Amino acid sequence: MSLRYVPLVELERLRALDASPIERAATFADACRINTLTMVEHAGSGHIGTSFSCLDVVSWLHLEVLGEGDRYFSSKGHDAPGLYSVLIALGRLPFEKLFGLRRLGGLPGHPDVVTTPEVVTNTGSLGMGISKARGFVLSDRLAGRSGRVYVLTGDGELQEGQFWESLQPTANRALGEIVVIVDHNKLQSDTWVSHVSDLGDLERKVEAFGWAVARCDGHDLAAFSRTLAELEAAEPERPKLIVADTLKGRGVSFMEPHDVPQAETSLYDFHSGAPGAEAYARAIEELVARLNAQLHDLGAAEVRLEEREAPRRTTLERPQRLVQAYSEALLAEAEREPRVIALDGDLRLDTGLVPFQQRFPDRFVECGIAEQDMVSQAGAMALTGLLPVCHSFACFLTPRAAEQIFNNASEGTKVLYHGSLAGIVPGGPGHSHQAVRDIALMGSVPGMAAIEPYCEEETRRAVEWAVRDATGPVYIRLVTPPWELGFEPPAVDFFEGRGSVLRDGDDGTFVCTGPVLVSQAWRACEMLEADGVRVGLVALPWLRDVDGAWLAEAAPGTIVCLDNHVLPGGQGEAVLRALADAAPEAAARTRLIGVDRVPECGTNDEVLRAHGLDAESLARRIQALHLAPPAASGTIRS
Amino acid sequence: MSLRYVPLVELERLRALDASPIERAATFADACRINTLTMVEHAGSGHIGTSFSCLDVVSWLHLEVLGEGDRYFSSKGHDAPGLYSVLIALGRLPFEKLFGLRRLGGLPGHPDVVTTPEVVTNTGSLGMGISKARGFVLSDRLAGRSGRVYVLTGDGELQEGQFWESLQPTANRALGEIVVIVDHNKLQSDTWVSHVSDLGDLERKVEAFGWAVARCDGHDLAAFSRTLAELEAAEPERPKLIVADTLKGRGVSFMEPHDVPQAETSLYDFHSGAPGAEAYARAIEELVARLNAQLHDLGAAEVRLEEREAPRRTTLERPQRLVQAYSEALLAEAEREPRVIALDGDLRLDTGLVPFQQRFPDRFVECGIAEQDMVSQAGAMALTGLLPVCHSFACFLTPRAAEQIFNNASEGTKVLYHGSLAGIVPGGPGHSHQAVRDIALMGSVPGMAAIEPYCEEETRRAVEWAVRDATGPVYIRLVTPPWELGFEPPAVDFFEGRGSVLRDGDDGTFVCTGPVLVSQAWRACEMLEADGVRVGLVALPWLRDVDGAWLAEAAPGTIVCLDNHVLPGGQGEAVLRALADAAPEAAARTRLIGVDRVPECGTNDEVLRAHGLDAESLARRIQALHLAPPAASGTIRS
Repeated sequence: MSLRYVPLVELERLRALDASPIERAATFADACRINTLTMVEHAGSGHIGTSFSCLDVVSWLHLEVLGEGDRYFSSKGHDAPGLYSVLIALGRLPFEKLFGLRRLGGLPGHPDVVTTPEVVTNTGSLGMGISKARGFVLSDRLAGRSGRVYVLTGDGELQEGQFWESLQPTANRALGEIVVIVDHNKLQSDTWVSHVSDLGDLERKVEAFGWAVARCDGHDLAAFSRTLAELEAAEPERPKLIVADTLKGRGVSFMEPHDVPQAETSLYDFHSGAPGAEAYARAIEELVARLNAQLHDLGAAEVRLEEREAPRRTTLERPQRLVQAYSEALLAEAEREPRVIALDGDLRLDTGLVPFQQRFPDRFVECGIAEQDMVSQAGAMALTGLLPVCHSFACFLTPRAAEQIFNNASEGTKVLYHGSLAGIVPGGPGHSHQAVRDIALMGSVPGMAAIEPYCEEETRRAVEWAVRDATGPVYIRLVTPPWELGFEPPAVDFFEGRGSVLRDGDDGTFVCTGPVLVSQAWRACEMLEADGVRVGLVALPWLRDVDGAWLAEAAPGTIVCLDNHVLPGGQGEAVLRALADAAPEAAARTRLIGVDRVPECGTNDEVLRAHGLDAESLARRIQALHLAPPAASGTIRS
Repeated sequence: MSLRYVPLVELERLRALDASPIERAATFADACRINTLTMVEHAGSGHIGTSFSCLDVVSWLHLEVLGEGDRYFSSKGHDAPGLYSVLIALGRLPFEKLFGLRRLGGLPGHPDVVTTPEVVTNTGSLGMGISKARGFVLSDRLAGRSGRVYVLTGDGELQEGQFWESLQPTANRALGEIVVIVDHNKLQSDTWVSHVSDLGDLERKVEAFGWAVARCDGHDLAAFSRTLAELEAAEPERPKLIVADTLKGRGVSFMEPHDVPQAETSLYDFHSGAPGAEAYARAIEELVARLNAQLHDLGAAEVRLEEREAPRRTTLERPQRLVQAYSEALLAEAEREPRVIALDGDLRLDTGLVPFQQRFPDRFVECGIAEQDMVSQAGAMALTGLLPVCHSFACFLTPRAAEQIFNNASEGTKVLYHGSLAGIVPGGPGHSHQAVRDIALMGSVPGMAAIEPYCEEETRRAVEWAVRDATGPVYIRLVTPPWELGFEPPAVDFFEGRGSVLRDGDDGTFVCTGPVLVSQAWRACEMLEADGVRVGLVALPWLRDVDGAWLAEAAPGTIVCLDNHVLPGGQGEAVLRALADAAPEAAARTRLIGVDRVPECGTNDEVLRAHGLDAESLARRIQALHLAPPAASGTIRS
C-alpha cells in the first residue's frame, strides 16, 4: 500500500501563492491535513479528528499571527500530528520526521519538549494549558520580556477542574497576553460532549470569570482572524478566550460527525487510531480534491504529491485481550450483584464499558473527563451501600484523583478502580499516557488491594475476587493492547498474595505480571535455556500484598522482579518487603528491574528495547548477573 | 486554669425556650459557640474562626430544616468543632465528647465516619462536597429513596478546581435535592480571600453553570431561613447555592476580622489553634454576655455554665524547628540566586514563607488553594529558566498535583516542592492532614530527589543542596511541629544517599529520618541499652535514592527501618531496594516498620503509641525480633 504526501517544495509553493493570507492559509491547512493523515496512517495510530478540527486555526496562527517572543501550544496535546505537519511545512522540523510519528527518535504521540524542542511545553494530560500560560507570562513579565501566549484547548477538556481552577487567578492578574482558543468540535473521545457531560453555556461561564470572550466559526479564517484581531484590540488587559466552532474530522466527509446520532450510546470512530488502507485512500482522495479545488479557484497548478510505501503491520494470532475479558467479567458480576454501578471518565470504549452501558443504563454513570468528581461521587455511593467501579486510564485515574481515592479509603468503604492502558506499552502515545507510577499511587492507599492479571482468565478471576471477596477497595491494573503471550496460559489458581509458576528453573526466577512482561520473560527464559541457564517464571498478579513465604519457595535461585512501572513503589519493592518479612534469605537473592526514567515514545518493540525490558535485553541482563557459568557459545547477542 | 461550658441541661432549656424558632436558634448557636471555644481550648488546637462563622446556619439547619432522609455535611470540614458542639447539644453525640476533641477515641479534628458515624462523610481536603452530594442523590434516586443534601463549603475552598468540575454535571442532571451554602466569611487560612486569590463575581459564576443562586446574611437567621425556603420553593429542579455572608470568628469581637487590614501581607490570627488562657477567658466573657443579652430579651434566665480544669500543656526546651530553618535557608538562597521564585497555596504562615514574601514581593506568587494550577504554573516558569519552589502541606501538594508534578518532571526541568505537615504528627487534625503517602507519590516521579531532614542544620543543608546542586526536581518533606530530639544533633555531613550515624550498636540499627522518628528511636535505643541490647541509629534523609553500600556498612546487625509513612512506597522499601542492589546480605537483615492503616487522630503521644511508633513500642518491637538474648529483668514494659 502506498502513502501519499505533500512534499516540502509544494508546501513552499503554497505558502508563496499569489493569494490573500486567508486563501493561502486555507490551502496550507488542507495540505497539512493530507500530511497529518499520512503521518498517522504511517504510524498506525494517532489522533486525526482533533487534528483536522483545529488545523485551520493552527495554520493561521503560525502563518500570520505568531511573532518574536510569542508562544503557541495545544493544551489538549493529542492534536500533535496536526501541529507537527504545520511545523514540518514551515521547515521548523525536518521533513523526514513526517514518517517518524510515534517512533523512537521521531515525533512523540503527544508533545514533548525534551525530544522536540520546537514544541513549547508537554501536554496530553488535559486541563493544564492556562496554568502553564500564566507561568510563561509571569516569568516574562518578571524578566521584562513581552510576548503573547496562544493556547488551544479541546472542548471535552473543559470538563477538567484545572481549567476552571486556572481561570480566575488569570483574570485577577489581568494577564492580557493570554489568548485561549477552544477547538469546539463538540465530540470528545467517545461521543458528543453534550451527551458525555454537557458544557452548558460556555461563553457565559468563562465571561463570569472575568475573561473577554468571543465566538466564531473556526473554519472560516476570515471570521476567525477578524474575531481575534478585534478581541485583542478591544481587550488589551483581560485574558481572552475564543470559542471556535469546528467540525471534528474537518475536511473528510466521512470523518466529520454528520452521521453520528445525537444519542447516549453513539460512538465516534475517528478520535484516535489510523483509518486503515481503504478509509485512508478515500480520505486522501477527498482532501486532494478539496485542495485542488481551492488551487483551481486561485488559478494555481494542482498539488503534486509524492508517495512512500506503508510499513507492514503484523497480525496477532492468539492475543490475550484483557480489557475484553474485564468487560465480560464485570457484566457477569453486575448481573449477579445489583449493587455494582459503573462510572466512566469518557473512556467507555477503551475500558470495555459499552456492553455494561447497554445492559444497565441506569447503573452506568458517564462522568466525562472529570476524574476527581467521578471518584468522590463514587465514594458517596459506596457510603450508601452501592459497589461503585471507577474507570479510566491508569495514567489519569490514579494521579488526578489521588487525593479523592485516599479520602474514599479513609471512609472504610469498598470502591473498585479500573486503570487500563497501564505501563509503557502501547509506546506510541508517549509519557502522558504511559502509566508508570500508578502502582505507587494506589499501593500507598491504606487497605487498597492492587492486582494486575497477565491473561484473560486471571482477569476474570480478579474481577470476581474484587466484587465478591475483597473487603476493601481494589485497584485493577490492565495492559490494554491485545498481546501474544507466546504460550498457552495454564489454568489459573487465584489465591491472595500468590501467583502461577509458569516455568520451573533452578538458576533463577523471573517474577512479574501483565502480558507484556510475562511474554518477554517467557521468551528470555527460552533464550537462556538455549544457553544452558534454567530460569523459571512466576506470574504474580498481586502488586502490593505478596505472600513472601510462598514466593520464596516458588522462586528458586536469583529472583528477578520485573516492573512495567518505575522501581520506587512498584511490585518489585512489594516483593522485597514481603520477602524481608517472611523469608529474609530470599530478599538477599532478589534483584529489581524496571522503568528507570520517563518512558520513551515509540513502537512497542522500540520502547521495550529502549527500557531494557524486551526478551533479548532481559536475557542479557540476567546473564550479567552470572546465575550460571557462561555457556561456551551464546545464542544471545550482546 | 478553668474552662467553662454550657451543660446539656442548659442546652435543653435553650432548645425549649418560649421564643420564635429564629430566636431559639440564635441562642442555641451562641451556646454552641461557647462549647466550641472550650472544646478547642481543651484540645489545644482546632478551628474556631470558621466554626463561628457558620454556627448560625448549621444550628438553623439542624434545628429547623433537616428531616428524615436528609443529609448535611461540611465540605470544608475544619469547622468540625462547631458541628460537634451542635450534635452534642442535640444529644446525638455523648456530652463527654466535648472534652475529647482531637483525642484518640474522641472526636477527630476533621470529620470521620469510621469513628464518628454521626457525620455523613469524610472531608477536610477541600472541594469534594458537591461531587459527594451528587453520589448521595444518585444513589438515593436509584434506590427510590428521597432526601435533600445540604453541603456547607468555605469560600477559600472555592479556589479548588474540583468545586467547579462538580458544578456542571450536577446541573446537567437537574439534582434539585442539592443545596450548597457557601460560608462566605471572606478569610481563608492566611488572610483575605480577595488578596489570596479573589473569587470574582461568585454568584454570576455559579449561575452561569446552571445553578439557582441566592445571597443573604448568614448571621441573620430570618433572612437565611426565608432565602432558603424561597429558593427551594422556586427552584425544585435545579441544584441551589446560597452565598451566606458571614464574619469569621463571629461572636467574639477580637476574633472577627475588623482589625485585619485589607493588604497582601495581613494575617488573620484565629483560623486554627487554641486561643490560650487569656484570650480564651476574654472570649468566653463576650460570648456569655451575648447569650445572656438574648436570654434577657426573651425574659429567660441567664445561662448557667459549668467548669472543668484545663489540661496542662508541656513546654518544649530545645525543640528543632524545621519549618523555621527552612524559611531562613530559602531566604538565604534566594538572596544568592535570583532565579528562585516561591509559590504558595494559602499556607505562607505554615510553610515559612512570610519573610520571603516581605523580602521578595515580586518573586512570591500566592496561588490560593489551587495546587494543580500552582504546580503547572511553576512548570512553565522552570521552562523559562526560573527555579520555582512550590509550597503546601504534604497531604495536599503531593496527591492533588500528582499529575502536574509528573508532567513537570517529564519536561526535564528543575522544580522544587516543599511539603510540610508530613507524617502522622501532629495527630490532632486527623487523616485528611496526616501525609502518609507523599513519599510514594513523589518518589515514583522519575528523576525526583526526595529528602526529609531530622534537624535544623540538615534542613538548611537540604535546601542548599536542592537549590545549588540538584540537577532535577526535589521534594523536601518536613515535620511541622517543633520537636525535642532528646539529644544535641551533631554536625551534619550532608552527602547524597547517605546519612548520619547518631548512635553505634552491634545488635541492630534503626534507620529513619525526621525529628519524630529519630527522637523515638533514640529513646528506644536508650531503653534497649538499659536491657543490654545495643542498637545503633542512622538518620537517613534520603527517601528514595539510598547509598546501599554505605548503609550496609554504617548499619550493623538487624536493620530496622522506621517509616513515618505507609510501608508501600516509603523509605523502608527504598532502603531494601538499595541494599538488594548493592549489598544483598544486608537486605536479608532488614525489617520494615511503618504506618499500617489510615492514621489515627489524637494527641501526638496517643497517635505515635497507637501506631506502635513511640519509643516504648519500638523498643518492644525490637525485642520481639530477638536481636540479642533477652535480659533477665527488662526495663521495658510489655
